[in-house]
Amino acid sequence: MTSPPRAEPVVTDDLAGWIAARRRAVEDALDRAMPAETTWPATIHAAVRYSLFAGGKRIRPLLVLAAAEAVAPPGLDGAAEAMPLACAVEMIHTYSLVHDDLPAMDDDDLRRGKPTSHKVYGEAIAILAGDALLTRAFHLMADIPADAANDTVRRRLSAGAVLGEAAGTRGLIGGQVLDLESEGRTIDASTLERLHRAKTGALLSACVRGGAILAGASAADIERLEAYGAAIGLAFQVVDDVLDGTADAAALGKTAGKDEAAGKATYVSVHGLDRARAVADGLLADAHAAIAPFGERARILAGLADMIVRRRS
Amino acid sequence: MTSPPRAEPVVTDDLAGWIAARRRAVEDALDRAMPAETTWPATIHAAVRYSLFAGGKRIRPLLVLAAAEAVAPPGLDGAAEAMPLACAVEMIHTYSLVHDDLPAMDDDDLRRGKPTSHKVYGEAIAILAGDALLTRAFHLMADIPADAANDTVRRRLSAGAVLGEAAGTRGLIGGQVLDLESEGRTIDASTLERLHRAKTGALLSACVRGGAILAGASAADIERLEAYGAAIGLAFQVVDDVLDGTADAAALGKTAGKDEAAGKATYVSVHGLDRARAVADGLLADAHAAIAPFGERARILAGLADMIVRRRS
Repeated sequence: MTSPPRAEPVVTDDLAGWIAARRRAVEDALDRAMPAETTWPATIHAAVRYSLFAGGKRIRPLLVLAAAEAVAPPGLDGAAEAMPLACAVEMIHTYSLVHDDLPAMDDDDLRRGKPTSHKVYGEAIAILAGDALLTRAFHLMADIPADAANDTVRRRLSAGAVLGEAAGTRGLIGGQVLDLESEGRTIDASTLERLHRAKTGALLSACVRGGAILAGASAADIERLEAYGAAIGLAFQVVDDVLDGTADAAALGKTAGKDEAAGKATYVSVHGLDRARAVADGLLADAHAAIAPFGERARILAGLADMIVRRRS
Repeated sequence: MTSPPRAEPVVTDDLAGWIAARRRAVEDALDRAMPAETTWPATIHAAVRYSLFAGGKRIRPLLVLAAAEAVAPPGLDGAAEAMPLACAVEMIHTYSLVHDDLPAMDDDDLRRGKPTSHKVYGEAIAILAGDALLTRAFHLMADIPADAANDTVRRRLSAGAVLGEAAGTRGLIGGQVLDLESEGRTIDASTLERLHRAKTGALLSACVRGGAILAGASAADIERLEAYGAAIGLAFQVVDDVLDGTADAAALGKTAGKDEAAGKATYVSVHGLDRARAVADGLLADAHAAIAPFGERARILAGLADMIVRRRS
């Protein structure tokens, strides 16, 4: 079985415009949410900003905002309601990269084409920068004007709980533990899926679920978006494995073939390249099916799913 | 100038009974808040529990509960309202110890008389165990029944914001950065106070302030408790410095004289032993003055302040 030719990612002008505008809004909000590099203690704020503004694609914040906008009732600015979570998930994603890159963990020198935090600031500050990003993420979720409406306060707390669950030992952290324990060992397909659902899928699902909660979605809508989030969450990592096995370092901005060299199981090593691609395509179809009931309101979510699964880096 | 004879700590039967009962309640709540060691992924839950149940004195949770009980109106169980924060501050305190002990930071082998987390579980798991404790702390604050009253939800979010501020770069993390940067250098008295207020004082103040918020305290009462918290927060660290310079490893459960050996500035190295003790006594008097308006309602808070400042280890 050989791979069919892959279609280029379809990014319509409409989607591209939405992404550009929302990325700018996220950059501004992240900038406002973090003390300046000159604020005491300057070292830690410089280190935090170095990693937070290192050219990330902001996929997670975009998913938060797209989910909120898809379900927000007329008159409610879904993106504004969901922006604290959009920032928080990017901070948590960034903290996890900073800690994962440490010498005691994956020992990576390069991230997004730049030296990793500990190479620039030393291990101690890199550990604390990760801690600071994680702390600020939850602080931001709790930071709300005293005169906010009861519904707003409730949704904030609820989205905070979703984030806490996804970032915890049954999500992001559990996935990293399983990843470390799997190194150099043969793991089966179900363990690999569990690893990816925890390490990458949990936080991506939380983006969609949390964004929907903050915009006041119904339980039924949250469930639909949850299914979309679970599918693209896993697809994201399958595509990551495919790219790690096929792309070069310049395109990825990190060391290509690193997982293979470290003896890590990937979708490619377990299933082969063609099957891994087929799995990603199947998950993409699942994602589209889950949000079909939303119709036109979900066009951005649909476009983001295509973009994630068809990406080249 | 020589030190006057120090009075033994006065722990009345009333205070001792309160402490014993609340410690049991905190241990139970912490146990319920953390997955069992057998829960997947077992390694991380074992590591988290190893450090969380290592014989800590639970000073911070006790302050949370005492503050809540001092201000709770008749009919409200202050301790029950404040228990999630009591657990959260102990988790955050524990995470900060686990990360501070890492080889890249203070490189400590012994903590509370036991090998440190990274000596037992390795550096990677110790880093992740700290991350897990920090994440679970904020998760716990956000975890509330869907039918909780609006006031309860608001107080939870507000206490979460207090905790986030205290644990962040202008509190706990900032203090640790300043501590690292001060190693082997001469720092002046005001920098030392800033360091301690951030590294230890911020979280201790947050215990008192957050506990009061969760029990529905008035703004005026919160301000009084804030002053009490700031005084004992700094006093705690001054006494720590005095003990580090005078006690032995067996009593402290950690390496005595470590700060001096590392060339770290302490209240003793900057002010001398007698002056450091006088500073602690002055802060204790400030703490008592701040809570005097509460009268009998603050007897536990008063007793805890005495216990913290007069402690021997």
